[in-house]
Amino acid sequence: LDLPEKDAAVVIAVSGGADSVALFLALNELVKAERLLIDLIVAHFNHGLREEAKGDADWVKNLVEKFKIEFVSGEGDILSQSKETKDNLEQAARHARYDFLCDVALKNKASIIVTAHTMDDQAETVLLRLIRGSGADGLGGIEPISVLEIQDSRFKIQNSKRIRNPQSAIRNPLLVRPLLSWARRDDTESFCRKHGIDFRLDAMNESVRFARVRVRKELLPMMKSYNGRIVETLARTAEILREDSAELDSQAMKLLTEASDDKSESRAAPLCVKVLLQASVSLRRRALRLWIEEGKGNLRRLEMAHILQVESLLKGEQGGRIVILPGGCKIERRKGFINFILQKS
Amino acid sequence: LDLPEKDAAVVIAVSGGADSVALFLALNELVKAERLLIDLIVAHFNHGLREEAKGDADWVKNLVEKFKIEFVSGEGDILSQSKETKDNLEQAARHARYDFLCDVALKNKASIIVTAHTMDDQAETVLLRLIRGSGADGLGGIEPISVLEIQDSRFKIQNSKRIRNPQSAIRNPLLVRPLLSWARRDDTESFCRKHGIDFRLDAMNESVRFARVRVRKELLPMMKSYNGRIVETLARTAEILREDSAELDSQAMKLLTEASDDKSESRAAPLCVKVLLQASVSLRRRALRLWIEEGKGNLRRLEMAHILQVESLLKGEQGGRIVILPGGCKIERRKGFINFILQKS
Repeated sequence: LDLPEKDAAVVIAVSGGADSVALFLALNELVKAERLLIDLIVAHFNHGLREEAKGDADWVKNLVEKFKIEFVSGEGDILSQSKETKDNLEQAARHARYDFLCDVALKNKASIIVTAHTMDDQAETVLLRLIRGSGADGLGGIEPISVLEIQDSRFKIQNSKRIRNPQSAIRNPLLVRPLLSWARRDDTESFCRKHGIDFRLDAMNESVRFARVRVRKELLPMMKSYNGRIVETLARTAEILREDSAELDSQAMKLLTEASDDKSESRAAPLCVKVLLQASVSLRRRALRLWIEEGKGNLRRLEMAHILQVESLLKGEQGGRIVILPGGCKIERRKGFINFILQKS
Repeated sequence: LDLPEKDAAVVIAVSGGADSVALFLALNELVKAERLLIDLIVAHFNHGLREEAKGDADWVKNLVEKFKIEFVSGEGDILSQSKETKDNLEQAARHARYDFLCDVALKNKASIIVTAHTMDDQAETVLLRLIRGSGADGLGGIEPISVLEIQDSRFKIQNSKRIRNPQSAIRNPLLVRPLLSWARRDDTESFCRKHGIDFRLDAMNESVRFARVRVRKELLPMMKSYNGRIVETLARTAEILREDSAELDSQAMKLLTEASDDKSESRAAPLCVKVLLQASVSLRRRALRLWIEEGKGNLRRLEMAHILQVESLLKGEQGGRIVILPGGCKIERRKGFINFILQKS
C-alpha cells in the first residue's frame, strides 16, 4: 500500500462504501499482522444530505468497533453551507469533509490521512476536468500524495511538489490515496465480499444530476467500447501529466525566483518584466499562475483570459497598466516590474 | 489566416469536402485581392478506396480550373499498401497522401503545404489519442505548423520545435493548418454555401467502422451534453499541452546534450547514466524517447514499457545490461554509459 511512514497515527476516511470499507479491512489486517506499525483512527463524515446518512454513520461505527478500532464521526449541513459559499454541492461537501478530516488528524496528532480513491475515481476526475477545460495540472487528476495546508483557517490540498518553502509544510498532515494507482472499484467490492463484510450503497452515487455520476454511467462505458482498458489508460495518462506538471512547476518556480526583486521570497514579490518575457510561453504562464496563487491565496475564478491580460501587460500591448483579478486583487505594472496588490474586500 | 510567408508557391490539399473547398475559396480570394502574394497549386489525392473517388477528382479539377488555378492529382492503392506495411487503412492513407503532397511541393519548389484541418478535427484527434493512451505530446493534437522531414525516402511530419539541428530543416516544406485554431467544420460548410459553391461528401466520413467517425458521431455529441463548447475546450487544452510539450522537449534536448559523450551531436550518441539519473522523471523519459527516435528514425511500436526497461537499466535494477527495442534495435549499458545499437533487419 506504499504508506510513507511507520509509528504514526493514521486517520482513514470511511463512508461505508465498498472502496473505503475495503481499505479499512486491508489496513486493519496489516496492522493486526504487525506489518504496519500505525494507530488507525476511522473518521466518518455525515454531509447531512440524505435520510439514510445517519444509518451509514451507525453502520460504520458498528463495523469499526467490532474490530476494536477508534471511531470518530462528524456532521455538516452542506446544503446551507453551499448556499453561503456559492460552491456547488459536491465542492461544499468536499470542503466540509476535508476540514473535518484535518481536524480529526490534528486532534489525534495524526500525520497521515488516507482516503480510498480508486483508479475509477481517477479516470472520472480526468474526464470531468477534460470536459470543463484544463491543462496538464488538472488532467493530472487526483494526487496520490498531497499536503494539507492551513490557509484562512481552512484546509487546502496542496501538491507536495509545489510548495516553495518545504519547511512550512512539515507539520501539515499528508493526504495519501493508497488505492489510486492500481485498485479498481470492482476489486474493492470483491474484497469486501471475500471478507464476508457488507458495504453501504450511497444513493447519491447513482443520481445522474451529478456530472461525476453521468461520467461514470454514460461516458466511461461509451469510451470503454473503444478501449476496454480505458480506466487504466486514463490513470496512466494522468500519471504522465503529473510528472510533466511537477517538472514544469519546478522550472516555473525557478523562473519566479529569478524574476523576483525580493530574494527573501516574500509572498508574491514584484516580478521583473524583462525576465518574464524571456521565458517560454509555457513557463511564463505557469509562473504567473503560481505567483497569483501566492498573492491571492487561491486560484478561484481565475481564468486563462486573466493570464493573457497579464501577458499583454508585460508586452506593453495594453493601454492601461493594471489588470483586475477576480476577488478584488489587481496587478500593476510599474518601472519594469509587475506588482501584486491585494485588496481587502 | 496567418500564413508565414509571401512570394512563395503554396500547395493546398483539396479533397472536395467542405473544409478544403472553403480553404481553397478563401485563399483564392486573398490571392485575387493581392492580399496574399503566393502562387496557389491545388493538389488532390485519390486513395483508390471508393468508387466515387474518381468523380471527386474530376469535380475538384473542374472547380479549380474555373478559378484558373493550377491543379495536380495523384492516386494510390491504399488497400494493398496497408497490407504491405501493416498500417491500418487510415494510417496508410495518411502516409500516401502526405508523400504525394510533399512530392508536389518539391516539384513545384513550394515551401508551404496547407491543409484544411478544422477545430473539429483537432477535438477528434485529442479524444482519439486520449482513448488510445497518450502523454502531453499526443494530447497536444495536430500541430498548426510543422516541418516535413525526409527520412528513409519517406516524408515525416516533425514538430518544428523538436528539431535539434534547425539548419537541416530549412529546405523542407512547412505543413500549415490555417483553420485549425479557430474554424469549425460547420463554418466551412456555410462559407461554401455563401459563395454558392457545392462540396463533395465522402462516404468514409460517415462509416462508423472508423474510430474517428465514431468519435465524431457518438462521443463528441455526448460530451457536448456536458459542455456545449466541448470542441473549443478540447482545442484550447491541446494548445496548452503543446506549449508545455515544447518547453519539456527543449529541456529534454538540453539534457541529451549534457548527457551525451559526443559534443558533435551525432545521432543517438552514448549517454551518461549519472547525468540521466539526476534529471527528473519527466525529462529523463522524454529525453530517452527523443534519443531512441534519433537512433531508430521513428517511435513505431515503442511503448512506455520499453522506456521503463531503459530506466531499470540506468538504475542497475535489471540483471542484464541490454534492452531490446521493437524493430531490432537495442540499448546496451557499458561503463557508465548507455549505447544505442542499430541493427539492420
